Amino acid sequence: MGRHAEITVRRAQVSDAEAIQATLASPKAMAGTLQLPYPSLDAWRKRLADAPADDFILVAEVVGEVVGNLGLHAASKSPRRRHAALIGMSVRDDWQNRGVGTALLAAAVDLADNWLNYTRLELTVYTDNAAALELYRRFGFSVEGTLQAFAFRDGRFIDAYTMARLSPLHLANAAGARAGSITKTASKVAPGSRRKRPS
Amino acid sequence: MGRHAEITVRRAQVSDAEAIQATLASPKAMAGTLQLPYPSLDAWRKRLADAPADDFILVAEVVGEVVGNLGLHAASKSPRRRHAALIGMSVRDDWQNRGVGTALLAAAVDLADNWLNYTRLELTVYTDNAAALELYRRFGFSVEGTLQAFAFRDGRFIDAYTMARLSPLHLANAAGARAGSITKTASKVAPGSRRKRPS
Repeated sequence: MGRHAEITVRRAQVSDAEAIQATLASPKAMAGTLQLPYPSLDAWRKRLADAPADDFILVAEVVGEVVGNLGLHAASKSPRRRHAALIGMSVRDDWQNRGVGTALLAAAVDLADNWLNYTRLELTVYTDNAAALELYRRFGFSVEGTLQAFAFRDGRFIDAYTMARLSPLHLANAAGARAGSITKTASKVAPGSRRKRPS
Repeated sequence: MGRHAEITVRRAQVSDAEAIQATLASPKAMAGTLQLPYPSLDAWRKRLADAPADDFILVAEVVGEVVGNLGLHAASKSPRRRHAALIGMSVRDDWQNRGVGTALLAAAVDLADNWLNYTRLELTVYTDNAAALELYRRFGFSVEGTLQAFAFRDGRFIDAYTMARLSPLHLANAAGARAGSITKTASKVAPGSRRKRPS
């Protein structure tokens, strides 16, 4: 890996609409998302202006230019999934593989783990997007499944991986709960009695 | 399997709000979804009244009583996922395992395959909901992955399977496209040249 230009991540604002439009007009970036050709500037202005307070749209700036964006959104309206957020991101074609995705994802994971307490981060990535897969794995995402014919891309249906990352806090709590229940079970179960093995 | 009472499936209307509320107030039905305790009658009235035209909420009526419901919704706002729909359903606790789910799902699959041309149906089901899993498999759904700590249920996080069913039309088209591309490849590739194996 060579040296990267300095990358600044900040919250998007309405005046970033042109740069986001330019990113999504670059063919690889568009194809890698669920966006469409001919992105609308007005639609992006409106989306940025109307974004709810808990919807984080971040942009990455390099040498004064916005070349990537990331959205961190509640995964569901149901309070039973309040712990889960969805990530989508894109980097302008001429800036891919130069640290922009890493900077954006590091900012999103920090937000999720340390401020928003999203304990489950979710995303989908087309199965042939090796660079993105590698990036997500590096941040602790793992593949939970393969969604067949998930989306239409350049004339045909394409599969996607569904990936997720559980936060360190979630994993620590889960380990604590397991330890707690083992202790409880151990103290409750009479010697010699049958015990269910975890399946 | 014993004989079932006659089950009628029809489109939901605002006056079904009470019955849907009653279904989702039954503990097993509620727990099996992303719904919450104390379902709101007003919220259901509003949801039924405001449902967009392409949002199908169906109910199952048995001996004059609505005891189950199913929603068939576009899976995404993106036109690149126009082929995909999401299914959610629930059956009142005292009517489970009596053919209500089968009747609702048969109606939804018929709608999707034969009228709406949804070629991919998606749903999530908690991994311990054996009856629902069996029902979905019977209609050709298969498990595409396991989503860890997908939702909160009765005091803890619970895993869900993500399942999907590709329509007969999609499968026929995919087989046709494969046959076509094999023919094309065969006719283009010179004898003795290397050919990529499908991975």
